[in-house]
Amino acid sequence: MEPARPFHDPRMRGFRSRTSVEAVLALIDRRVGRLSLESIDPRSAAGRVMASEVVAEAPVPAFDRAAMDGYAVRGEETLGADSYSPIPFTIVGRVRPGAVSTIRVGPGEAAEIATGAPLPAGADTVVRVEATEVDGRIVRVSEPTPPGRHVGREGEDIARGAVVLSAGRVLRPQDLGLLSSIGLDRVEVVRRPVVAIIVTGDELQPAGIRPDGSRIADANSPMLAALACRDGGIPAVIGPLPDDREAIRSAIVDAARSADVLLISGGSSTGPEDHAPGLIAELGELAVHGVAIRPASPAGLGFLGPIPVVLLPGNPVSCLCAYDFFAGPIVRRLGGRPPGWPYRPRVLPLARKLASVVGRVDYARVSVVDGRVEPLAISGASILSSTTRADGFVVIPADLEGHPEGASVTVWHYDQDG
Amino acid sequence: MEPARPFHDPRMRGFRSRTSVEAVLALIDRRVGRLSLESIDPRSAAGRVMASEVVAEAPVPAFDRAAMDGYAVRGEETLGADSYSPIPFTIVGRVRPGAVSTIRVGPGEAAEIATGAPLPAGADTVVRVEATEVDGRIVRVSEPTPPGRHVGREGEDIARGAVVLSAGRVLRPQDLGLLSSIGLDRVEVVRRPVVAIIVTGDELQPAGIRPDGSRIADANSPMLAALACRDGGIPAVIGPLPDDREAIRSAIVDAARSADVLLISGGSSTGPEDHAPGLIAELGELAVHGVAIRPASPAGLGFLGPIPVVLLPGNPVSCLCAYDFFAGPIVRRLGGRPPGWPYRPRVLPLARKLASVVGRVDYARVSVVDGRVEPLAISGASILSSTTRADGFVVIPADLEGHPEGASVTVWHYDQDG
Repeated sequence: MEPARPFHDPRMRGFRSRTSVEAVLALIDRRVGRLSLESIDPRSAAGRVMASEVVAEAPVPAFDRAAMDGYAVRGEETLGADSYSPIPFTIVGRVRPGAVSTIRVGPGEAAEIATGAPLPAGADTVVRVEATEVDGRIVRVSEPTPPGRHVGREGEDIARGAVVLSAGRVLRPQDLGLLSSIGLDRVEVVRRPVVAIIVTGDELQPAGIRPDGSRIADANSPMLAALACRDGGIPAVIGPLPDDREAIRSAIVDAARSADVLLISGGSSTGPEDHAPGLIAELGELAVHGVAIRPASPAGLGFLGPIPVVLLPGNPVSCLCAYDFFAGPIVRRLGGRPPGWPYRPRVLPLARKLASVVGRVDYARVSVVDGRVEPLAISGASILSSTTRADGFVVIPADLEGHPEGASVTVWHYDQDG
Repeated sequence: MEPARPFHDPRMRGFRSRTSVEAVLALIDRRVGRLSLESIDPRSAAGRVMASEVVAEAPVPAFDRAAMDGYAVRGEETLGADSYSPIPFTIVGRVRPGAVSTIRVGPGEAAEIATGAPLPAGADTVVRVEATEVDGRIVRVSEPTPPGRHVGREGEDIARGAVVLSAGRVLRPQDLGLLSSIGLDRVEVVRRPVVAIIVTGDELQPAGIRPDGSRIADANSPMLAALACRDGGIPAVIGPLPDDREAIRSAIVDAARSADVLLISGGSSTGPEDHAPGLIAELGELAVHGVAIRPASPAGLGFLGPIPVVLLPGNPVSCLCAYDFFAGPIVRRLGGRPPGWPYRPRVLPLARKLASVVGRVDYARVSVVDGRVEPLAISGASILSSTTRADGFVVIPADLEGHPEGASVTVWHYDQDG
């Protein structure tokens, strides 16, 4: 039996050279910018990124108001009051929260007032209810209460014209409250990037089906979709596709019409069934192919016009590593977010030596046991369970042979809590 | 003018006593448990909480497979090979990923194989392509390759019967990949709690409308909805409602039919317009009313049957404080999540003295400037912008008068990044 064409073209054995991680990140930094903005209801803006600053067009509160339940009076008239010689005022009415009051408080007069109600004209202070006794239409004040006491001033929360939130802000729950309090019904945020996820591989069957004797389930598309969501993107999964050049080409061309970034998982290396790199070179620009990083060396980066394309290895650990290093920063930059890892860093001592090879960055999965870092594995690109058993990872820079036992290393924790 | 009934009932002046924060948390701990489970598609399970452990019913991979591109042979036949005396094998076929192969590799024979393809019968190792030369039907192997080399064994990622994820796990992106890889199409997760948010106050107008001269915009419902979402809940906003006892009663009764927890904002204190505490006492049980915490002392906790009800002060900072201390832990516990704060703690020195009063917990908003903690304000319950200007907060325990300048304090950062 004579193979029709060799699987393994001797001219294509591995990468001639590998780009450094730093160079890839510098390229991303140079070529990938923030998307345009969209205007949305502030109530659905939690976690979104402000595209422009917000200026308060009105003060908050828009009026002087009572900060306590009590009696609105002229403060100077209360000076000298105490419980032995309370000062009487005539009650001229009641001011409710939310109501426009026509009451005017004159000399010797008081208006009942509840917290949050507008201070009536003529009054300049609120005597707290605990310092009063009521007898019919008379209230006796037993505590001197200078002007301005227990009064929330117009604009005390937000002054008119104040910049309340700046561009780039990732909106907190309380920010939505603030935007609401100044009466905004629309807010300009950075558009969420649409992340096309094209998964390829003859060996893959779709997620949700029990794998059979020769194929494995597609683990990368659910993982990449969740990663893209976490980073503020809108995932669009295409595939799994067979290792068919025309099918992949057509999926890439289609996706580039609507997506803001393409992630192509599988077929990213140098073999004859690795179609993605050649297709990106043909349809646009293949800027990087092969990176000095383990376990994601068959990764790549290209552009179709302005649209970044990340080539991710099909092995799921390599795929996660390539996402963490290259795709994640692109998705976050497009969405206006800080490009750094959304993982919690903690510096901890190594329980055992962590070996590496000079010349490449290593993405080493570790667990943390009793405050010490246990390396799980730095090989095993196909062992996805190494990333689910791990608490996080340690990055070994390219210029180090690893770290000795006891060395302090930064663990990037996959979980935010715990 | 004679007020029909006094705003300020002297029998209701403030709280007789205030429950300690610890006692409220202990009550929550005792009375609030995890909700029931639901079965969902693993692809939409990111961030959800596993309700039961997952056991792999099949190994991953389900077959021995090539971990490199190369030639599948009997490893013992390669021993002694080197580049000066390569050992020849007859190529008997090619094994593709994803295909079931009928090839059998006999003595002196080799099958071309690509990464991920099932190892053919008879072969026990993969010689990597870089260590071979092909000449027609003959491949010459120049590297000894013992049995098992470059072979991913059946079950090497996940053994049959292994517990791959435990109950309580907050699902990571890679966990979705793992669940997919074992072929699961459903996964049992804790139900997301429905969080009814009832906002009350005559002084409120709905969010999204510019506040006028006597009312303020409802800032609490957008804030509380975003907080509930962040903590894994499904918010259902009701209101703003006027301070009308019957309207609030009816909203509470309705909400208790479908929600897993009720948050009632506003009207939580002891004045005549504070209807919520009395209604909860009447409809169920008012377990706590008044807490020794600033700025959220008019907070409360009750139960309508099994449904927890949190009374939150209407002042937005107090509302946030009461959510952080009492409502958040309830929402997270119902959803099976760790009840602790989803805020990043960091221990830093105080730039200035942080004063407090013995006998109550203080929730002090702070900013971090050059690695030092600047207190922003510990009063000003109505100043929501203090929580948007702040980087986070410091909690001053009830038994302390505050912290001196230079003391190390834990700042709970509102943002996960930065």
